[in-house]
Amino acid sequence: MAVYTEVADDELQAFIASYAIGALTSCKGIAEGVENSNYLIQTEAGRYILTLYEKRVAREDIPYFLALMEHLAARGISCPLPVHDRKERNLRELAARPAALITFLDGVSVKRATIEQCTSLGQALGQLHFAGESFPLRRKNGLSVAGWAPVFDAIADRADSIIPGLAGEIGKEIAELTQSWPKGLPEGVIHADLFPDNVFFLGSEVSGLIDFYFACNDMLAYDIAICLNAWCFEADASFNITKARALLQAYESVRPLSAAELDALPILARGAALRFLLTRSYDWLNTDGDALVNRKDPSEYLRKLRFHRRVQSYRDYGLGEH
Amino acid sequence: MAVYTEVADDELQAFIASYAIGALTSCKGIAEGVENSNYLIQTEAGRYILTLYEKRVAREDIPYFLALMEHLAARGISCPLPVHDRKERNLRELAARPAALITFLDGVSVKRATIEQCTSLGQALGQLHFAGESFPLRRKNGLSVAGWAPVFDAIADRADSIIPGLAGEIGKEIAELTQSWPKGLPEGVIHADLFPDNVFFLGSEVSGLIDFYFACNDMLAYDIAICLNAWCFEADASFNITKARALLQAYESVRPLSAAELDALPILARGAALRFLLTRSYDWLNTDGDALVNRKDPSEYLRKLRFHRRVQSYRDYGLGEH
Repeated sequence: MAVYTEVADDELQAFIASYAIGALTSCKGIAEGVENSNYLIQTEAGRYILTLYEKRVAREDIPYFLALMEHLAARGISCPLPVHDRKERNLRELAARPAALITFLDGVSVKRATIEQCTSLGQALGQLHFAGESFPLRRKNGLSVAGWAPVFDAIADRADSIIPGLAGEIGKEIAELTQSWPKGLPEGVIHADLFPDNVFFLGSEVSGLIDFYFACNDMLAYDIAICLNAWCFEADASFNITKARALLQAYESVRPLSAAELDALPILARGAALRFLLTRSYDWLNTDGDALVNRKDPSEYLRKLRFHRRVQSYRDYGLGEH
Repeated sequence: MAVYTEVADDELQAFIASYAIGALTSCKGIAEGVENSNYLIQTEAGRYILTLYEKRVAREDIPYFLALMEHLAARGISCPLPVHDRKERNLRELAARPAALITFLDGVSVKRATIEQCTSLGQALGQLHFAGESFPLRRKNGLSVAGWAPVFDAIADRADSIIPGLAGEIGKEIAELTQSWPKGLPEGVIHADLFPDNVFFLGSEVSGLIDFYFACNDMLAYDIAICLNAWCFEADASFNITKARALLQAYESVRPLSAAELDALPILARGAALRFLLTRSYDWLNTDGDALVNRKDPSEYLRKLRFHRRVQSYRDYGLGEH
């Protein structure tokens, strides 16, 4: 949970008045996202999320994220739409931070998705990739292979304090994945953080995708690999192949995977598990008690990484022979 | 800010379904109140606040608070109205905690009230006291004179670590106020915590009063004394007599104060300042960094206490000769 920045009353009133959305009727700090401060804003015209971008989001990346949401929303993806102020700006400053007002989406995030919800998610991910094809801006994935070593360097000497042997296991994994990381797969815009927190459902259907602040250009199949990690394991880190099959088949109903993508899936899934193992380990070691953030247990992703290391082929994720 | 308890998806769905308010469309943990966990709930029927009562609210007191809100709302006070479930219960259990669903109120709380807002607040407080007259339940004020010594005992040995000399000053103050505390003034239901956090405005007008979880039966003028402390000082602890006059005159336009109440105002204001000095000092010493609560500086209330100690009569609060 996170509300890092408080906004003064008069500043907020002036900010809202600079948009053509009527008078402010309510403002609540909400516990959503761990990177930024978020407020649920209600005005005479509707409901919005006001996001103040804290230091973990690079200011120069924000125009990419906002333009992407506008691009996707214009193509029918249910994602937040940045609201333009009376001067047509979608990015502003408030309380000395970059700030954007985006539309509110109905729906609730789930902690344990059902199979039907995994099906709906797979379709939504395929549609997201399809809609992102024509997006003209580019942003590198800072947390793909080349980005892992710097994070590891920052935690290597203390990693074993989290789990004995962790440093050695991560070091070996980075070396192997750097060797075997696929090249030449179809690329496009990926969400790169499509965890259950960032997906809203109404019943079994996806009603919205949020938090595009890790979005970037990378292999589309890497986004699928992230979802396999985030959606298809049970609380005890056992793999739920039924959910994976549902997710993958639904994705393929929108965008069929090439043979090369299918073959790369196990290694991409290992990479995705390693990426979250690294950042969770970093956060574990660097979060102080005051930061109002619930630290997430890194060991969950070590168990997932080990699972993917044993996977032989895409068929182990529930897909039939292609 | 506070969301202490997470509710499992299926538990929440079942809970909402037990009320006749349609399907759940959104649920956000909100940073409101420091005592309880609060969620802003949206359903097909409207907007609600779901409160899970954490340990600082005594379970046996909750029926008083809920009945009071129903009593006040039925008399036109804009306060949250507890929603009854399909079995007519307004108090439930969720995530192993007492839980209530109450209506959502429009409006925003302000950090620095204007004079007009102080006027509206004074009227709202008078109306609250008037509407509470016929409320049949009773609850003792646990944080009036008799309640101060136990809090002081718990912090006396460490109080000087907050502010040098604090323990001695509080001890002397408790002794003097115990001697001079007024008796026989008009009593009734008081809010007892009507700080800016707990009052919503739309423009200059009060649109709602919330957080009745300190409400109790006590001298009505003590509630006014709390508001003088909470609303009529500037950030540098200087007293704003214009705001005090606005608040008091507006209150008297609804419920005129007796001569005895006017005479007691300085001592009640001292007591109110002491009450918040005590609990803030206690929280300061007993809040660990993990509790997701912003500690409030106790010294603010020491400065206010010293101000009231120098006050000669109610005229020093801006009221003319009565």
